[in-house]
Amino acid sequence: MTAIPHFYPVIMAGGSGTRLWPWSRRARPKQFLRFNSPYTLLQETYRRVLPLTSPERVLVVTNRRFVNEVQEQLPELPPENVLGEPEGRNTAPAIGWAAVVLHRRDPNAVMAALPADHIIARVERFRRVLRAAVAVAQEGYIVTLGITPTHPATGYGYIEQGDVLTEREGFTVYRLLRFTEKPDRTTAEAFLKAGRYVWNSGMFIWRVDRVLREIQQQMPDLYAGLERLGAVWGTPAAPETLAEVWPTLPKESVDYGIMEHVTDAAVIPADIGWNDVGSWEAVYQEYPKDASGNAVSGEVLMIDAEDNLVLGERRLVVVVGATNLVVVETEDAILICTRERAQDVRQVVKTLTAQGREEYL
Amino acid sequence: MTAIPHFYPVIMAGGSGTRLWPWSRRARPKQFLRFNSPYTLLQETYRRVLPLTSPERVLVVTNRRFVNEVQEQLPELPPENVLGEPEGRNTAPAIGWAAVVLHRRDPNAVMAALPADHIIARVERFRRVLRAAVAVAQEGYIVTLGITPTHPATGYGYIEQGDVLTEREGFTVYRLLRFTEKPDRTTAEAFLKAGRYVWNSGMFIWRVDRVLREIQQQMPDLYAGLERLGAVWGTPAAPETLAEVWPTLPKESVDYGIMEHVTDAAVIPADIGWNDVGSWEAVYQEYPKDASGNAVSGEVLMIDAEDNLVLGERRLVVVVGATNLVVVETEDAILICTRERAQDVRQVVKTLTAQGREEYL
Repeated sequence: MTAIPHFYPVIMAGGSGTRLWPWSRRARPKQFLRFNSPYTLLQETYRRVLPLTSPERVLVVTNRRFVNEVQEQLPELPPENVLGEPEGRNTAPAIGWAAVVLHRRDPNAVMAALPADHIIARVERFRRVLRAAVAVAQEGYIVTLGITPTHPATGYGYIEQGDVLTEREGFTVYRLLRFTEKPDRTTAEAFLKAGRYVWNSGMFIWRVDRVLREIQQQMPDLYAGLERLGAVWGTPAAPETLAEVWPTLPKESVDYGIMEHVTDAAVIPADIGWNDVGSWEAVYQEYPKDASGNAVSGEVLMIDAEDNLVLGERRLVVVVGATNLVVVETEDAILICTRERAQDVRQVVKTLTAQGREEYL
Repeated sequence: MTAIPHFYPVIMAGGSGTRLWPWSRRARPKQFLRFNSPYTLLQETYRRVLPLTSPERVLVVTNRRFVNEVQEQLPELPPENVLGEPEGRNTAPAIGWAAVVLHRRDPNAVMAALPADHIIARVERFRRVLRAAVAVAQEGYIVTLGITPTHPATGYGYIEQGDVLTEREGFTVYRLLRFTEKPDRTTAEAFLKAGRYVWNSGMFIWRVDRVLREIQQQMPDLYAGLERLGAVWGTPAAPETLAEVWPTLPKESVDYGIMEHVTDAAVIPADIGWNDVGSWEAVYQEYPKDASGNAVSGEVLMIDAEDNLVLGERRLVVVVGATNLVVVETEDAILICTRERAQDVRQVVKTLTAQGREEYL
């Protein structure tokens, strides 16, 4: 596979999910975990894009406290390619920062903002759609990847497709009509029925000069801050400027801060086996199942148990007679949750936080 | 409370249950475990009878490999009062051995054979019924304690009461008509309806001369072996004789080997809060519940979870949304079982045995 000229993947690895407790912790969020793979989600994300570029052209934006972890997990990456945010201020500042850094390196850079905490099962297909997206972005479009919905999910934002714009690498490219927030069940069902809605994957592809122009117009405060960061990047003044500027940047997402108001935007629907691993139920869906519908890892013994997710780490876990459970065993904590209530694991983290039980967070 | 003259409790602590895995292990069977108490079942059994006698008069029969454990748990007991069986050969040899030992000490001894692996909630009432039983035994009767049935249990043997024999300490004493094996459901329901059946508690009270005479008549082989053991007891020849004789003794229970054919036997029905702790469901019944019906110990967090038994030992255990589960967390293994299937924990031990996973047995 040949590298795409001027192509720079930017891996967004600053997240801190709470719904995969007790695996995910403050010090070890989802992107640094392994799900049915020898590689972490971050490493998987990196390995997916590497054939399209080279290690020197991959950037990672993460929280400052995860910079070491990222460097350990991706030792090939040049250290200056890991951007450590002093604090999380949502995706617009993170992506903007990567854009100004890349713009100084290569005025013709095309970047792809790629969340590090998703699973993509159909890797070859993903690479093809990314290739298509970069081609469309080269022509000046803001491009997003849309996920073909499989059910009326209420947990994702949706993108409405407009007319067909073009065809690339076997994918149909649509004009992007509008972004919608997470819908209620009825609306989600209507979207699914209408057929022209796709899930917002959070993956954006654009020329950096184009996105910086959008930021300049739509988020001038952010743009001013980014200009200051760009001016000192790679100089001894960079850390001090970062410490000064970063806290002043608006906390805003790319979706609301930029994409909602953009023109000449495109969306490419892609059936790439995408899973945002947003809950233990999503993890269950991702794992291979035995004949009884159980997804297991570690040392596990199941007796007349069906349709469970059981992840052992250190100890023998035995399940007798139970169905539709999530069981996650770690060194210091064990979760037993019905699959149905998997979303409510957030509540566990909230409760532990309220109780001040820092050791489990 | 005054001690009963010539009274010798014999605590039967040789059991090796498999239904309370992962708490119960080969090296640590049920009688050595604590259930909602600072004392183990063995210690509780000892503490129940102590006010009726003195430490020098309490015997414990156990497997040889548990002798140290018994001595650690009951340091007051004279070492010679702990009888270590070379191997388990059911209750008739165990009880017979205790009887010959006691007969040499005190020809007028009355012994009570008391399983160490039961919970008895109403201790004062138990002591009263034991006092009544000893009084009846002094008159030459073979006495058993019957448990007033609360439901048509199929897991216990039943005893049929005959005519009223006498009254003692407020308890009505009946002639014992017959022992029955564990009944099927229909039979158990008929027993419950008939009203004259009680559960066989495995607690027997008798003069040792009387029970030895019964053994002599009904199990002459056993009697011959016991005579040899009695003759050398307390002499240097004891260990060698034990090693020689013990493997030849018939493997038989008191119920079938002696009680079935006995005349002049009595049964005293007693509502003493008896629980044989025969499964995790029985343990659940024994523990205090919170407002949601959860019985918990250790570091446990329950969110919208009801009617569960959750026993944590070392780690935080979190349960979300689940109902009617048994969760038992130990250092090296974790059990998650529906309460309904609690009996099938036996199957876990069988499977682990078949797989040769000795470390968990």
